[in-house]
Amino acid sequence: MLETMFSVEITVRDYECDQQGIVNNAVYLNYLQHARHEFGRSVGLDWLQLSEQGIDLVLSRAELDYLLPLRPGMRVRVTAEPVRKGKFRFYFEQEILVLPDEKPAVKALMTVACIVDGRPAAPPELDRWFGPPN
Amino acid sequence: MLETMFSVEITVRDYECDQQGIVNNAVYLNYLQHARHEFGRSVGLDWLQLSEQGIDLVLSRAELDYLLPLRPGMRVRVTAEPVRKGKFRFYFEQEILVLPDEKPAVKALMTVACIVDGRPAAPPELDRWFGPPN
Amino acid sequence: MLETMFSVEITVRDYECDQQGIVNNAVYLNYLQHARHEFGRSVGLDWLQLSEQGIDLVLSRAELDYLLPLRPGMRVRVTAEPVRKGKFRFYFEQEILVLPDEKPAVKALMTVACIVDGRPAAPPELDRWFGPPN
Amino acid sequence: MLETMFSVEITVRDYECDQQGIVNNAVYLNYLQHARHEFGRSVGLDWLQLSEQGIDLVLSRAELDYLLPLRPGMRVRVTAEPVRKGKFRFYFEQEILVLPDEKPAVKALMTVACIVDGRPAAPPELDRWFGPPN
Repeated sequence: MLETMFSVEITVRDYECDQQGIVNNAVYLNYLQHARHEFGRSVGLDWLQLSEQGIDLVLSRAELDYLLPLRPGMRVRVTAEPVRKGKFRFYFEQEILVLPDEKPAVKALMTVACIVDGRPAAPPELDRWFGPPN
Repeated sequence: MLETMFSVEITVRDYECDQQGIVNNAVYLNYLQHARHEFGRSVGLDWLQLSEQGIDLVLSRAELDYLLPLRPGMRVRVTAEPVRKGKFRFYFEQEILVLPDEKPAVKALMTVACIVDGRPAAPPELDRWFGPPN
Repeated sequence: MLETMFSVEITVRDYECDQQGIVNNAVYLNYLQHARHEFGRSVGLDWLQLSEQGIDLVLSRAELDYLLPLRPGMRVRVTAEPVRKGKFRFYFEQEILVLPDEKPAVKALMTVACIVDGRPAAPPELDRWFGPPN
Repeated sequence: MLETMFSVEITVRDYECDQQGIVNNAVYLNYLQHARHEFGRSVGLDWLQLSEQGIDLVLSRAELDYLLPLRPGMRVRVTAEPVRKGKFRFYFEQEILVLPDEKPAVKALMTVACIVDGRPAAPPELDRWFGPPN
C-alpha cells in the first residue's frame, strides 16, 4: 500500500444497526462507497460529472470479508486504495479499521468497470485515479 | 439449480435508487438478506430466535457480481439456495433475476459462519437449513 | 376517505428494523414515498419526468403520528390520498395500516410544493393528481 | 435557544441522495435521530439501556419543515434541544443547518413518549434530559 493511502473517518450511527445490535451488512457497502467517492473528490474527479460526460464507472464485483462486528458509537477509518491491472481492470482495495487500534472489521476488493458507449473503456481521465496502464 | 429453490419477489422502489437513477450497490445486500431471512421463515427457523439461544449466524464473506443495473419499477426474483460444504462451511448461493425474462442482475455467494460461545460451531438445528454435514 | 383511495401493500423486512426490533422511524417515510410514487405511476405521472420538464414536486412538510410499532414480517397497506386546497396547496393524506385488521400504525399529512423556475406554481398537469383549484 | 444547545456535524454522503440528486426526505429523520441519540450519550443516558430497564422512549410524532435541499458534500449541523411541557410531554426541537452560514434546511419538532408497562410515564431519569416537570 501507498504511504499516502486515502481514508475517511466515520462514527457508527445507531440507525445503521439492525436487530442484532450491530451494523447491518449492507451498510458496510455504504461506508466503502463513501470512501471511494471522497477519494474521487480529493483528486478532483467526480463520479456524477464523469457520468454526464458519458464515462460510467460502475461497480462490477464486490468481495467483502467481514471480520469484526461494528457497534453504535464505534469510530472507524475506511480506506480506498485504487489499483490498476493491465489497461481495463480497475480495483479499489479497501479496509474498514476500528479505531483507535485499527483492527480490521472488513477487508474488501471492489472491482470497477469503466463503460463508454456501452463498452469497456479506459479513457485517460482514469490515469489520475488508477495510474497508467501497466 | 434445485427445483425447490426458494425465492421472493421484490419491486424496486424509487427511494432505493441513487443519483445515477439505479439501485445503489448496497441495496442489493438488503434484497439478498431479505430472501435469506424469508427462506429461514419458510422452514421454521428464525435468525433472531437462534441468536437468543446463543447460536449466532453471521455473514462472514460476501461475493457479488453486478451484471445489470436495476431501475425504478423493475420487478425481480431473489433466490436463496443453502449449500453446505463439510461440517462447518455454510453458504447461500443467490441470484437477483429481472422479471419477466429472468436475466441475472446479480449473482452472489454469501458465506455464513455459525458461532456458539465465540467459536465456529455446527449445531444440529442447522441441518434443517443446510442439510447434514457432507 | 374516497372509495377509490390508492394503496400499496408492503411486507416489513428485517433490515428495516433497528436495535429495538421495530421498524426505524425514518423507514416509514420510505413507505409513504413509495405509495405516493406508485400512486403517481398509476395515473400516468412520474416525479422524475416532471422534474425533467422543469416542474419540481418537493416535499415541503411532513407530519406523522406514530401509533403502533411495526415488526418484521408484518404486512401493511400504505394509502396515498391526494388533496388540494385552493390553487397552490397540495397534500397527501396517508396512512399505514397493519393487515389484516387495518389498525393504523401511522397517520401522516405530507405537504407537497410545486416549484417552477424557483417559484411556487400550479401547472395544469397537477389537476390530474390533485383535482382542479378549489 | 439555549447557549448550550447540543449539536452534531454531519457531511452529506452521496448514497444518501436519490434520483433527484438531493438527500432523500427520509434520511433527514436519520440525521435527527443521530443527533438525539448523541445528545443522550453526551448526558450519560442511552436509549437501549433505558429500554432494557423497561423504560421505552419512542417517537410518537414528527413534524418537519423542509426548507432547503441538501446535496452531496454539504456539511450540516444538526441540533437537538430537549423541551418538557407539564409532566408527560417531552419534545426535541431540532434544526438541520447548512454550514458554514447556518441557513436552516429543516426545522423539526419531534414528540417523544415515555412508556413504562404499556402506559405513559415520567420516571425521574428523564429529568436529566428534559428538566423537571413544569
